[in-house]
Amino acid sequence: MRHSLAMFFFASALPLPAFAQSSAAPAKADAVEYHATIDNAKYVFGVAPPVAHVKAGNILEANSLDCFGNALQKPGDSMSLVKGDNPLTGPFYIDGAEPGDTLVIRILALQVDGKQGVGTFSPGFGAVNSTHYTPVLEAKPLPERMWFYPIDKEKNTATFQALDSDFKVSFPVHPFLGCIGVAPANGEARSSIVPAEFGGNMDAPEVSAGNTLYLPVNVPGALFYFGDGHAAMGDGEVAGSAVEVPMRARLQFELVKGKSTGWPRFENEKEIMAAGVYRPVDDALRIAVTELIHWIHSDYGLSELDAYELLSKVAKVHLTEMVDPNYVVIASIEKKYLPLKKGFAPR
Amino acid sequence: MRHSLAMFFFASALPLPAFAQSSAAPAKADAVEYHATIDNAKYVFGVAPPVAHVKAGNILEANSLDCFGNALQKPGDSMSLVKGDNPLTGPFYIDGAEPGDTLVIRILALQVDGKQGVGTFSPGFGAVNSTHYTPVLEAKPLPERMWFYPIDKEKNTATFQALDSDFKVSFPVHPFLGCIGVAPANGEARSSIVPAEFGGNMDAPEVSAGNTLYLPVNVPGALFYFGDGHAAMGDGEVAGSAVEVPMRARLQFELVKGKSTGWPRFENEKEIMAAGVYRPVDDALRIAVTELIHWIHSDYGLSELDAYELLSKVAKVHLTEMVDPNYVVIASIEKKYLPLKKGFAPR
Amino acid sequence: MRHSLAMFFFASALPLPAFAQSSAAPAKADAVEYHATIDNAKYVFGVAPPVAHVKAGNILEANSLDCFGNALQKPGDSMSLVKGDNPLTGPFYIDGAEPGDTLVIRILALQVDGKQGVGTFSPGFGAVNSTHYTPVLEAKPLPERMWFYPIDKEKNTATFQALDSDFKVSFPVHPFLGCIGVAPANGEARSSIVPAEFGGNMDAPEVSAGNTLYLPVNVPGALFYFGDGHAAMGDGEVAGSAVEVPMRARLQFELVKGKSTGWPRFENEKEIMAAGVYRPVDDALRIAVTELIHWIHSDYGLSELDAYELLSKVAKVHLTEMVDPNYVVIASIEKKYLPLKKGFAPR
Amino acid sequence: MRHSLAMFFFASALPLPAFAQSSAAPAKADAVEYHATIDNAKYVFGVAPPVAHVKAGNILEANSLDCFGNALQKPGDSMSLVKGDNPLTGPFYIDGAEPGDTLVIRILALQVDGKQGVGTFSPGFGAVNSTHYTPVLEAKPLPERMWFYPIDKEKNTATFQALDSDFKVSFPVHPFLGCIGVAPANGEARSSIVPAEFGGNMDAPEVSAGNTLYLPVNVPGALFYFGDGHAAMGDGEVAGSAVEVPMRARLQFELVKGKSTGWPRFENEKEIMAAGVYRPVDDALRIAVTELIHWIHSDYGLSELDAYELLSKVAKVHLTEMVDPNYVVIASIEKKYLPLKKGFAPR
Repeated sequence: MRHSLAMFFFASALPLPAFAQSSAAPAKADAVEYHATIDNAKYVFGVAPPVAHVKAGNILEANSLDCFGNALQKPGDSMSLVKGDNPLTGPFYIDGAEPGDTLVIRILALQVDGKQGVGTFSPGFGAVNSTHYTPVLEAKPLPERMWFYPIDKEKNTATFQALDSDFKVSFPVHPFLGCIGVAPANGEARSSIVPAEFGGNMDAPEVSAGNTLYLPVNVPGALFYFGDGHAAMGDGEVAGSAVEVPMRARLQFELVKGKSTGWPRFENEKEIMAAGVYRPVDDALRIAVTELIHWIHSDYGLSELDAYELLSKVAKVHLTEMVDPNYVVIASIEKKYLPLKKGFAPR
Repeated sequence: MRHSLAMFFFASALPLPAFAQSSAAPAKADAVEYHATIDNAKYVFGVAPPVAHVKAGNILEANSLDCFGNALQKPGDSMSLVKGDNPLTGPFYIDGAEPGDTLVIRILALQVDGKQGVGTFSPGFGAVNSTHYTPVLEAKPLPERMWFYPIDKEKNTATFQALDSDFKVSFPVHPFLGCIGVAPANGEARSSIVPAEFGGNMDAPEVSAGNTLYLPVNVPGALFYFGDGHAAMGDGEVAGSAVEVPMRARLQFELVKGKSTGWPRFENEKEIMAAGVYRPVDDALRIAVTELIHWIHSDYGLSELDAYELLSKVAKVHLTEMVDPNYVVIASIEKKYLPLKKGFAPR
Repeated sequence: MRHSLAMFFFASALPLPAFAQSSAAPAKADAVEYHATIDNAKYVFGVAPPVAHVKAGNILEANSLDCFGNALQKPGDSMSLVKGDNPLTGPFYIDGAEPGDTLVIRILALQVDGKQGVGTFSPGFGAVNSTHYTPVLEAKPLPERMWFYPIDKEKNTATFQALDSDFKVSFPVHPFLGCIGVAPANGEARSSIVPAEFGGNMDAPEVSAGNTLYLPVNVPGALFYFGDGHAAMGDGEVAGSAVEVPMRARLQFELVKGKSTGWPRFENEKEIMAAGVYRPVDDALRIAVTELIHWIHSDYGLSELDAYELLSKVAKVHLTEMVDPNYVVIASIEKKYLPLKKGFAPR
Repeated sequence: MRHSLAMFFFASALPLPAFAQSSAAPAKADAVEYHATIDNAKYVFGVAPPVAHVKAGNILEANSLDCFGNALQKPGDSMSLVKGDNPLTGPFYIDGAEPGDTLVIRILALQVDGKQGVGTFSPGFGAVNSTHYTPVLEAKPLPERMWFYPIDKEKNTATFQALDSDFKVSFPVHPFLGCIGVAPANGEARSSIVPAEFGGNMDAPEVSAGNTLYLPVNVPGALFYFGDGHAAMGDGEVAGSAVEVPMRARLQFELVKGKSTGWPRFENEKEIMAAGVYRPVDDALRIAVTELIHWIHSDYGLSELDAYELLSKVAKVHLTEMVDPNYVVIASIEKKYLPLKKGFAPR
């Protein structure tokens, strides 16, 4: 009901469904399927003809290419084979979505769509080398490098093989989407390497199965895109890449009508998480923390100062990446530390 | 042996002792005991007459006052009762420590020394309000507030009680020292609210039982201080305080002769952790990540680019605080993802 | 000649014409005239149908509305009258411009198109208050305010009249364009409040009569826009607005074929000036200074270290604004401190 | 009279004396003379035995060594000859100065004390290369370099001679003190390479003849130091050094009793100037601009919002350096744009 939705920010999202892949997901009949190729890939988050329509409640089953358009397959393959960074699957038109609404994306399942991942270092990109936006003079730049990561689906691991020694080590796979977003506000179109208010290249491990993402709807139909699958990534994505992989995704959409969110938000059964997506990190953190305080105040009823104090005792702050044109910080709190949500009626 | 120490950075620290409180700690005879009061408290990290001498291998058993000098005990107590922020216990003269050495501090045990903690919000201090170093014009500043946290030692919890509603919630206690450091280099003396190369007010939960801290020795005897006990703290310490408590500490000291560390480092059985302690957060992260890369390169033998790439896949980045005059970021990697340490000889 | 152009970056721009308004400008026959209104205004820098074509060598004579679309005319007028921020005049298709070229814009003359200017303070925008991208918690935000500035064309002054006292003071008018730019690269479209590589809302007083601006061409025809006239502005545009005015502009275009510039550059008879347009200010400065060093190295032949050293002795650094979504720093050096330009042949 | 001093911030400083070197300076009898050598140099701003006492109204005539302790005299001299950076002359005990007062320093005259200056580039220091506090990974660092600048006292110029070509150019000399400060607050002692609230290594050309500097008094006698003479410097001191010279200084001291200043302030007959001395540049600017707004509000009576708006139209912002451990921004306004100072009584 619209009226009560207007009173409590994300009230419509309550109670959250179980997120596990094994949960009673909507019947196959409600699913929209789509196959992405290098030929139908997009490279900006913006207004473009939709590749398919999806209704609220529907499930989207689609694949994405890796951030290099699947062009790097073996040692010696050149970056010049890459047609464009972060090819996107989409856009999908969410029926009924209008500016001022919130798009709810439930990440039901993600599966690495291949047998290996790739990581690269490119001069001019990374957290601790000279970059386009933080340039320094150097006698000589670091060289371009490429690492391949075999993925063992049974053990759920990827394997790092050093280039300058014979060291090898395996680590767990945690699949997530580096890119997920909608068309930006104010008529803007942004490159698929940029994260901002509309989501985009957030490189956030929080975009994984079991989590729900809230994004602002800025144009009719929202125009949803995703891509840039990651099999695993360290905090900060410091050298500029994750274990880059093609992905298969199962996503479900809902709408919160007439209520918007200024910045991306995440939620699961245990936590609420507010993203700050800007630069420098200090400002990304300021955005994330103030948004989380406002969220707690609006939906859970603590005063802003009580919320601020409580976060100072139990908040988690996650720096997801410090390499893209904007940086991403996610501030979160476990729901067990919050009052019952306003308007919550136990059944 | 000095010579081999010089070859491998922290070689002398290997093999690490078991860190658990129950481990075979040195006999009581080797312990130095000290009792801190408001009258013998110090307020700067710098050169001052030592309160006691400690030998390498010795254990120090001492207490610290809370960051308000234990002056705030009940609602209504005024900040004007506070004689100075972060009163420090010390300095302790570590026999044999010379500039160019590394001081190794093993945190054997920490125990909250009281039944409650306190948290405060003070205008001008915090991560997301107008501050001394990030001032903004305001029609009206936020008011000063104070929260008391009863501590249940059996359940190992502290309890938040909202000031503007009757909401209450308990959360786990994880005791650590907000202040731990030595006299700075270059003849400097720094306020006990400042963290920097010498350690200081790092507000790092990594300063907890089971972890080892490495600090540079800048003056003869190192002149070790600690204080500012925290029963628990959220990432970023966003509102400017933790659950502030008096503390009892049991610490053991070692020296790595003739090898220095530029920035504080942490280690335990599972991880190596490099701290970046400066401002803005972006630079703290740059320091932490480059230090961790250099550490991996020097002690574990990966090339710098391999180390950079590996961190991009498995690093953890922890923003410990963004409220003090410098900010603290700790970048870490689990040892299971690293080669065997150089010079390591399995027994 | 294309070949030599490729060798020396801006060689084709030499010798520079006299820039003074009284100089021998091209005959009227070569001029393109255009009249901007609120109905043909644009609000993004991006690909859109051109309003007119202009050839290299042609002069454009056109007007722009003020940043509020001329909607605020007297005390009491509400911000709600403003249809959109920074309405742009354009786009103009520069015949022959192709991606990889540089667009040369000579600012021949600017004239305030009205009798008054307006300044506003809006909560959420400004250098030293809580903003969208640097938010802080406040007990109460600063209020919205509006100031009108009568302009005396004979004395060439604008007059500030305080709102909270009867103090009045006049200061000189120095007309410039706050917005000037082309369609961005990579298929992006950016709001008219954003400055970046493509120029845009740089709010740079350097965009004034007598100066030449170099911008990268990213799409066929470049698609040139301008607007947001300023009669005068303090460094940093700290409260978020200048003396905002409608403007009449006379601009001449040239192309440097086959040579691009990564960031906006300015030049006049006395100086070369490199802009850094990003955030935080530190990075804007890093971009500006490294660009200026590269420029001196490429076109004037000093080694990079000699150029760096020389700038450390005689550079000017101008912070033009710290309020838009990106910040702008312009680093410059007087030509009298440089060697003769490479390839320069005295006549 | 103390009472009225308490009402208006710098009332005691009015009317300002003429600053020119030719003005009627106090008779020689009131002068304190001091000769600095490498043997009596200090390297920290902090509490130390004074080298001389100076009374309010007195003039100090003293010299300072260059930032290398005059150790670099010719090509080939090694940085290893340098005993310490920025040797300071002092401290001078200002009789009657107590914490809470403001120390007024009138810079009567500065004279380069030698025939040449020196500039150096050192890896790890500079605005656009990898540094201690903004480290990046590099394949190879830039090399150490040294430039010598002959000074022509008749023409008042210094001459740059490129190292990698035979280019030479002369530019005007504008002598100022890079270091000027007092003992810090809170028992701190800071290295002579650091600028902060107490002044210090501000590298501000505003510390030149004709200007007055206001600093907080933090300890009895203030304990005044100076050094690091510069014959000329570009904005930002980008490569890390100016034209470094020994200097002779004539300084006059006054006290404003019972009124303090949080940050350094400058004034001359035409301007008031507030310094922000921290890091990143964004925060240095926030400090400088808010301080200038408070100054205008307190002493000249404009409301804070009127002052903010007026600065947005006529302020100057000067980035003095972005290379030291803290950065320095100076925001200023010409007095002709301000109301008459409160309490000003024309004679």
